[in-house]
Amino acid sequence: MHATLREIRRTPEGIKIAQRAFEEFVTNNDFLLPREVVYTGCGSSYFLSQPLAMATTHRGGRGVALPCSELLYSREYYPVREPELLVSISRSGETTEAINALQSLDVPKFALTAYESTLSREADYALVVPAHEESVVMTHSFPAFYFAFLQLLNTSFGQETYDAEMASELTKEILKNEGYVREITEEFDFRNVIFLGSGILYPVALEAMLKMKEMALFWSEAYPTFEVRHGFKSVADDGTLVVLLVNEPFDWHEKLTEEFQGQGARVLTIGNGDTGADYFIGFPEVDELLSPILHLPLIQLLSYYKAVKRGLNPDSPRFLSKVVKW
Amino acid sequence: MHATLREIRRTPEGIKIAQRAFEEFVTNNDFLLPREVVYTGCGSSYFLSQPLAMATTHRGGRGVALPCSELLYSREYYPVREPELLVSISRSGETTEAINALQSLDVPKFALTAYESTLSREADYALVVPAHEESVVMTHSFPAFYFAFLQLLNTSFGQETYDAEMASELTKEILKNEGYVREITEEFDFRNVIFLGSGILYPVALEAMLKMKEMALFWSEAYPTFEVRHGFKSVADDGTLVVLLVNEPFDWHEKLTEEFQGQGARVLTIGNGDTGADYFIGFPEVDELLSPILHLPLIQLLSYYKAVKRGLNPDSPRFLSKVVKW
Repeated sequence: MHATLREIRRTPEGIKIAQRAFEEFVTNNDFLLPREVVYTGCGSSYFLSQPLAMATTHRGGRGVALPCSELLYSREYYPVREPELLVSISRSGETTEAINALQSLDVPKFALTAYESTLSREADYALVVPAHEESVVMTHSFPAFYFAFLQLLNTSFGQETYDAEMASELTKEILKNEGYVREITEEFDFRNVIFLGSGILYPVALEAMLKMKEMALFWSEAYPTFEVRHGFKSVADDGTLVVLLVNEPFDWHEKLTEEFQGQGARVLTIGNGDTGADYFIGFPEVDELLSPILHLPLIQLLSYYKAVKRGLNPDSPRFLSKVVKW
Repeated sequence: MHATLREIRRTPEGIKIAQRAFEEFVTNNDFLLPREVVYTGCGSSYFLSQPLAMATTHRGGRGVALPCSELLYSREYYPVREPELLVSISRSGETTEAINALQSLDVPKFALTAYESTLSREADYALVVPAHEESVVMTHSFPAFYFAFLQLLNTSFGQETYDAEMASELTKEILKNEGYVREITEEFDFRNVIFLGSGILYPVALEAMLKMKEMALFWSEAYPTFEVRHGFKSVADDGTLVVLLVNEPFDWHEKLTEEFQGQGARVLTIGNGDTGADYFIGFPEVDELLSPILHLPLIQLLSYYKAVKRGLNPDSPRFLSKVVKW
C-alpha cells in the first residue's frame, strides 16, 4: 500500500497526536497567543497558515498569512509591519525559507512543525506535532497541525477547546466515504478539476488544488466560491469536475451548481447539505472552524485515487522532494 | 481586427485617459485617501484591487484586498473590521456583487469604474476612468484604472505623482514587442503556462492567468515567484511555458530559471534584466509600483496570440458575459 494512502487513513490518529502535543505545549509553556499574528509557510504549510490567520481574525484578533518567500523578498507590500508574533510552519522544520523567514521580523517567533528541528530550536516557542509522514506529500499532518494550533487559539482567546475524541471520531466517520471517492474517479475520467470554498474553506480548496498537482500531476484550480463565475469558469466543460466545499449551502450554491451543469461539468458537493450536485458527500453539523479537518481527508483521497487512476506513484512525485532547500 | 487586440494596443491612450480622469477627480473632490483601506472587486477587478492594496501598504498605509463575494458572505474571516474607506471596483459599474459589496461595511464608499453607473451613484466618491472596451475581456482599462488610482494614492500620501506622458510613452515602447510575443506563441505550442511574480507583480501574474483562461480557454497558473518550487512545479515539463515577471532579478531568479529548464520547460523573463531565460523582453528602469502597467500589455498580448493560435475568438469567450449579474 502507498504510504500516502496509509497516512490519509491515519487522520483520526493524527488528531489524537495533535491533542497530546497541544496539552504538552500548554503544560510546558506559559504562553497565550497575542491578537496580531503573522503566519508564514511554503506550499501546503502556506495553505495551512491561511486558515490559522482566518481563525485568528474570526476569534477577534488580526491574522495575516503570507508565503515565506514573499516575507523574505517583498514584505513591504504586505500589512506585516507590527505584529506581536510570527508563526513559521514547516513539516520537517528544515525548509530553508521557513527558517530564514523567522529572521525577517523583529518580533517573538513561534514554530509549528512535526520535529525537533532547526526551526523549533531557532524559535522562541515551538509546538511540535509528531504526525510523521513517509510520503513526499503532506496529508494527515495538515489537519493535525491545524487542530493542535486551533486548540491553542481557543485557549488563548478564552474559548472552550474542542473535544478531541469527538473530532477524531468525526474524521473516522468521514473516511468511510473512501469507496465512494474512489468510484467517482473511476466513473468520471475528468480532464481538469476546480475546487471552490469560501472563508475558512477557501484555503482548503487551495490545498486540494496542490494535492491534485503533487499526486496526480494534474490540471487543478481553486477559487473563492463565487469568484469562479468571473472569468475562470470558461475552462469548465464536460471534462470538468467541480468540487464545492461548503458548510451550510444556500440558494446561490444551488444556482452555481446548475450553472456548471449547464456547461456540461459535473459537481461534487461536500458539506452539510446537497446543492443538486452530481455527487454528494454529507457532513455532520460541526463548528465551521473545525470543518477543514473533515474536508481535508476527502480531497486528499480524491487526489490519491486520481493519481492511481493515472498510473502514478503519489508517494514520490516527479521533480519534488520531501524537504525543499536552496 | 479583434476588439481585444485593438484595445490592448490602446494602452498608451488609456494612460492619458486615466490622467485626465484623475485630474478631474481632484478638481471636483476635496478628498484624500485614508490609511486603512479595503479594496474589493470580482475577477480582473479583484486582481486590480490587490496591487492597489499593496501600493497602499507600500506607501505606509494598510491595504487589504478581497473578492466581493468573500466580503459579502465570509467577511468574518478577513481583517476588515474597521477600515476608513471601502473601494469597490467594477469596469461596468453594474456588477451585482460589486454594488452589493458597497453595503457590506459601514464606512465611506469609493467607486472605481469606467462609467457613470449604479456603482458610481451609490458610492460617496467615484473615480470614473472612461477607458471603454468592446471586448468581454478587460485589457487596457486595467492599467488605466491602476494608474489613475495610483496618482490619487501618491497625492494622498504626499508623494509626487508620476509623469503621465512618460508613463504613456513607456507603454508605447513596450508594445513594440508585439511581434516577438506573437513569435513565441507560434514557435512554441505550449500545453500549459505558469505565471510568476513577487510583491506588486504577483497580482499581475494572477491577472495574466485569468486572461489566458478567458481568451484562450487554457490551462494557466499563477504563484508568488518562489512558492512555485513547493509542489506546484510538478506540472511543469517540456510542454510548459513559465513566464517570470520581475523588476530587478537576482541570483535566485537565475536558479529558478535553470530549475525549470532542467524539467524541460521554457522560460520567458519579462523585466529589467535577463535570468538566462529562453525568451527575454527587456524593460526600462521604472519605479516598481509603476511596473505593472508595462507588464500587463505584454501578458495580455501573450494570451491574445495564444487564443488566435488555438483558433478562438478572444472577444467573446464561451460561457462568459461582459457584465456578471445574478
